[in-house]
Parts: sequence; C-alpha cells; structure tokens
Amino acid sequence: MLDYWLGKKVYVEFERDDGYRSSSGIHSYFAPPSKWPRMEQEAMRLVRGRILDIGCGPGRHALYFQKKGLDVVGVDASATQVALARIRGVAQVYQASVQRLPRGLGTFNTALMMGNNLGLAGDIPRMRRFLRDLREITRKGARLIGHSRIPGTWSEDHLPYVKWNLRRGRPPGLLTLRARYKGRVGDWFDLLLISPEELARIGQETGWELVRVIWEGGYSPGDYVGVLARR
Amino acid sequence: MLDYWLGKKVYVEFERDDGYRSSSGIHSYFAPPSKWPRMEQEAMRLVRGRILDIGCGPGRHALYFQKKGLDVVGVDASATQVALARIRGVAQVYQASVQRLPRGLGTFNTALMMGNNLGLAGDIPRMRRFLRDLREITRKGARLIGHSRIPGTWSEDHLPYVKWNLRRGRPPGLLTLRARYKGRVGDWFDLLLISPEELARIGQETGWELVRVIWEGGYSPGDYVGVLARR
Repeated sequence: MLDYWLGKKVYVEFERDDGYRSSSGIHSYFAPPSKWPRMEQEAMRLVRGRILDIGCGPGRHALYFQKKGLDVVGVDASATQVALARIRGVAQVYQASVQRLPRGLGTFNTALMMGNNLGLAGDIPRMRRFLRDLREITRKGARLIGHSRIPGTWSEDHLPYVKWNLRRGRPPGLLTLRARYKGRVGDWFDLLLISPEELARIGQETGWELVRVIWEGGYSPGDYVGVLARR
Repeated sequence: MLDYWLGKKVYVEFERDDGYRSSSGIHSYFAPPSKWPRMEQEAMRLVRGRILDIGCGPGRHALYFQKKGLDVVGVDASATQVALARIRGVAQVYQASVQRLPRGLGTFNTALMMGNNLGLAGDIPRMRRFLRDLREITRKGARLIGHSRIPGTWSEDHLPYVKWNLRRGRPPGLLTLRARYKGRVGDWFDLLLISPEELARIGQETGWELVRVIWEGGYSPGDYVGVLARR
C-alpha cells in the first residue's frame, strides 16, 4: 500500500486455500467518497457521534469523518496500515485487532467495519465474542455499521468453495486467504462472509439488533451493509 | 383464481401469524413469458426433458413447455388449481403435495418449483425429506429449478419477523401464512424462505448439488432461482 501511496500502480493478489487467486487494484482503499459504492454512501449517512473505525486500513473513512469534525479513532491489525493512516493524517489511530479491541479510549456511538470487514473475527464463535466485547466499549443505541457479502452466491467461481466448506464441516462463508505481493507471501487468515439472516441470528445472541440491510445490487448482488443497534 | 380467469379483477390477501398482511394481484400467475421476471426467463432456458412442475397453480409454466412440445406433468396441492390448470389446457395435471409426490408417473429430467415454491415443504426437515423423495423420481443429472428468497432481508417490513422467528427458535425464513379472499380464510400453512447457502447445505446432505444461482436484483434484490443437479 505504501508503494501505491508513493505513486506506483499496485495490485495485490489474494490466494484462497483451494488455490483460487484473485488480483485487485489498491485504488479502492484510497477512493474519494464520490467513488464509494452506493450502499456505502447510503450507510455513511447513518454515522453519528464518536466513531471507532475497525480495520481502518489507510483511513479513507476515518479521514472523511475527521474532516467533518467528528471524533474518530481508527484501529488496524497491521502496523503498516496504522503507519500509513497516520502519515495520511488520521489523528487517532492504533494497532489493534478485532480479537483484542482497544480499552481506555472511552465509549463509541458508531463502530465501522467497511470494506468487507464485518467478518474480520474469522469465524462464528469469534464473531460472537467480538460482538460481546464491542458492547463493552459502546453505549446503548450505538450502531455497528459493517459490510459483508452473502457467501459464494454472487459468483459461480465461488460456489464450489462454499460446497467444499460444507463438506469440510466449516461455515459456508469461511474464507481462508493469504496475500501475495511482489513475491512476498503473507500468513493465512480467516475471513467470514456472513448472510444477513446469520448476522441477525448472531446479533440476537449477543445483544445487537439488526435494524437495517442496505444492498449494493448491480454488479455486486451479494454485497450489503448491515446496521446493528446495541440493545 | 377462478374469478380472475372469469374476467374479474382479483386480489388475494396473505396474512402472516404476526398480523402483517399483504395483498397481491393474481395477474402474475397468468402472465405471459415476456412478463416473467428476468431470472425466471433465464432459468427457463435450462429446462430440458420430462418436466415435473411442482405447485403448478393455473399452469403458466406447464402450458409454456407443453406448447414447446415437451412432456410436462403438473401437480398442485389445491383441487381448485388442478381444475383451473386442466381447464386452461394442461394435459397432465394431478392433485399432489410436496409431502407426497406422485408415483407411477415415471422419472423426470427437470423439476420446477417457480413462484417462490422452493420452500413449499415448509421447514428444513421436511425440505430434506422432499429432496430425498425427489431423487426417487428423477435421474442422475436431473435438475431442480426453484425460486426462493433470502429471508426477510429484502425489506425492512420483514426484518422484525425474521428476528421474531429467531427468538422463537424457528429458522429465520419460516413464514406461517394463511390466505384471505372475499371474507373466506384459509388454513395456516408454512412456507420456508431459504438462502442460497442454506440450500447448498441441505443439497449437500440429500444428494443434490447447487450448481447455479440466478439473482433477480432490481426491486427484488433477495429473490433468486437456485439450480440443483441430482448426484
């Protein structure tokens, strides 16, 4: 990402544990609000109060709300992302993962998990733990606004993987991925794709109510932003 | 439906067990192919061989394929629908429900469950039983082509019902409905709305492979046709 920011044309490749690879440009991580997906533009109108941007990356949402005068804290598990967000002007940004949310920063009115971050916890038990942890640093009525995708069903390429997951006894939307960039290979990590009804179910169990689903549609029919309210 | 066919303007009302009511025109049950939803037009191109049209209603698909010279058998649980399909010209149509599929009619290459019929079995255990039963009267490679909907998530009206289901320990997409028409009230029945990944899961368990998902999009972002192939 630093390469991109330094002016290079950058593609990162993600490898799935079945060997499938997809390459994607980094530009979307830096896109201005006018280029954000429609669902994202709509969802961002629901943001209010103190914001925790979870998996903030280079800080595209954090910078947007900071410019609007809101109090926003970014966290990212990657030290590189944290450094990049800081260089780009995010005033409050810390290294932290969804497994261990930062304490001592007060409470928040909005938690953001855009860019397919909603399933960053990696699997359903950890997703439950994450939602319970998030209750501790949010107030009643606070919102979690996050982007996910219906597992596999938006593309025929991905359907065999969903079926392989089911045969292996894994949740249909559990992706095991690693990044490849300039010959370097990252560690394997899990990303959970979660359907809205599964999100409603996990929310029900952990004190969060799914109050809204905003679909992207068009070329991304399985992509949506779920809005959960803390009970 | 007979009223509509006799030239009257007809609306039927469906009442859900939470009191929610929706009224819908009957015209779609009689629509010509050019007015069918896009996903349906696309899915109908996958039909081949002997066809079993399950929950055929007044026979809009059965008539279409019959005119194309295909061998098509319609079944419907309602005697009125069977009579109507017969009057409209469906040559082979019988009263039968998904709980008890007809025997002695040979085997089929395609089973159709359009018009949100995919979840007619009513719940997940009965859906599993239905898929196993359907194996008995289909050949290897046969396709089940059916329409369902992602539970609740296409509309804010329906989201509270999904959450109520979860609180009651029911599947998120289980609808309990009854029809109301001209002061008459039908019996309560269950209709299951099923997401594609849940369909993939149930298929995996019962010898059917989800090979394709065709989304409607637009005003019906949660509607899709699932295509299952018999293993």
